[in-house]
Amino acid sequence: MKLLIVGSVGMDSIRTPFGSVRDALGGSAVYASVAASRFSMPAIVGVVGEDFPQRHVRMLERRGIDVSGLQRVPGKTFRWKGRYLFDLNTAHTLATHLNVLRDFNPQLSEPHRGIKDVFLANIDPELQYAVYRQLRAPSIVCADTMNYWITGKRAALKKLLKVVDVLLINEGEARQLAGVPNVVRAARLIRKLGPRVVVVKRGEYGALCFSDGDVFAAPTYPLESVFDPTGAGDSFAGGFCGYIARCGRITPGIIRQAIVFGAVMGSFCVERFSIQRTAAVTWRDICRRYGELHRLVRFEHIHEGRV
Amino acid sequence: MKLLIVGSVGMDSIRTPFGSVRDALGGSAVYASVAASRFSMPAIVGVVGEDFPQRHVRMLERRGIDVSGLQRVPGKTFRWKGRYLFDLNTAHTLATHLNVLRDFNPQLSEPHRGIKDVFLANIDPELQYAVYRQLRAPSIVCADTMNYWITGKRAALKKLLKVVDVLLINEGEARQLAGVPNVVRAARLIRKLGPRVVVVKRGEYGALCFSDGDVFAAPTYPLESVFDPTGAGDSFAGGFCGYIARCGRITPGIIRQAIVFGAVMGSFCVERFSIQRTAAVTWRDICRRYGELHRLVRFEHIHEGRV
Repeated sequence: MKLLIVGSVGMDSIRTPFGSVRDALGGSAVYASVAASRFSMPAIVGVVGEDFPQRHVRMLERRGIDVSGLQRVPGKTFRWKGRYLFDLNTAHTLATHLNVLRDFNPQLSEPHRGIKDVFLANIDPELQYAVYRQLRAPSIVCADTMNYWITGKRAALKKLLKVVDVLLINEGEARQLAGVPNVVRAARLIRKLGPRVVVVKRGEYGALCFSDGDVFAAPTYPLESVFDPTGAGDSFAGGFCGYIARCGRITPGIIRQAIVFGAVMGSFCVERFSIQRTAAVTWRDICRRYGELHRLVRFEHIHEGRV
Repeated sequence: MKLLIVGSVGMDSIRTPFGSVRDALGGSAVYASVAASRFSMPAIVGVVGEDFPQRHVRMLERRGIDVSGLQRVPGKTFRWKGRYLFDLNTAHTLATHLNVLRDFNPQLSEPHRGIKDVFLANIDPELQYAVYRQLRAPSIVCADTMNYWITGKRAALKKLLKVVDVLLINEGEARQLAGVPNVVRAARLIRKLGPRVVVVKRGEYGALCFSDGDVFAAPTYPLESVFDPTGAGDSFAGGFCGYIARCGRITPGIIRQAIVFGAVMGSFCVERFSIQRTAAVTWRDICRRYGELHRLVRFEHIHEGRV
């Protein structure tokens, strides 16, 4: 049930066509932890500055998230400033201030080193690997990455991938990492680098999951109004890893369900700014949306010659 | 079982990263008829010039397609020249020569006027409407359109939509027609213009179908090599309309199956140039791919509180 999540913790200032927010709680590890907390017991590992409001820490604690790995150091918290135009598919970064994230060097506590399931959210692959190396007996290692590391730290990323079980990656970044335009071929090539499962996130188009001899296509929940897409991918990953950690093993059936739970958490995330919606959903909300996704894709089978 | 299909008949010259072809059989009505012929008995209505090879007509006939509505007139056949770059999602038009299509004025024969199910493939909405008006007792009217008519003939298109039961439309064109960026909202607005069913085609991302109180998300078959995407949308529409005509009625379940058959025919289309692959597939191939799509999206349901 325990899930170690390492990644960024920050404050986001975002403008969308529907509103704007300043210094809202954000960061890959935050989105992922909040989503995962609905399924498992996440322990968040990250760094914040002196300006990070204590109420955010208390909010995470209230969700049952172990915050003992949240280091507070002198300096300012990581900040991201972005905006979305009407299509909402593309984030336009206006400013990135790494601040205390620049010197982040995660040191796991003894109890955290014993956690078996881990999600290495999107940070420098060298840090992701350093965290992995501190684990005593990792069982299921999930990781995310982004274009910045694919181009800037390819060797470190490749070293990391050798020990990763499940890579969650955006479609464009999968193409970039593999160097081929076709996503099916890209996933096959990435699997050769290490991960036995590759989950390709396609934003509003859902996700494709490639594992040994199995392909799964998951939809997204068709929302009439997307408010703010920030954190959707991390919430997806949190739901996915949280459910995997809850099950404690990977089977084709569990992976499929985990992806759908990821899609559910991603769809809640985009309905409000920050973690507002994800933190407020009930277990009943989650199950209802899971059921809606189940209905969304269902169609009757046919039998050859009998149509 | 009969299905009237009106649209363009032409010859395409295409270059993709994998090869090129000159004056290959193409056109919306051709792709749709060949795909539909696997499910129903299409009658194609279109116009060709003196240069249109008779072997193409014979090929259509061999597929059981009624070619009596294929008019041959003085002049040259409609031609399209295009190319695809590596992403294969965007067709770059190099030349369009309407030729005999410019003065196309379809006159249905008596037997054709009695056909109940019709697919008005992508041509001028005024012509689509003129064909509709010649039908004695249309039952299920399906139609496609494109950006060119949405901007250039919006009034005629809106008049047509009032009598259309099922509109098949590209995602970008749905947004353009409705004037909103969100596809769910766009479909809702388009349904207000007439069609009780709106099928939004999303290329390699599958399709979304909106009908009364029901949404269905269909995947595409994840192909490792897409050879030429030309005609995929028309083949999709042909499979869809062909299955609808076979069933002779619209229910939520039939629509879902029809969309999956559409996805199957679209996926075959892109594996070769022109109709080469679609014309060659066996019923067994179709059923096998339908089954693969069924497996592709399947996941276990959960019951609240029991995960």
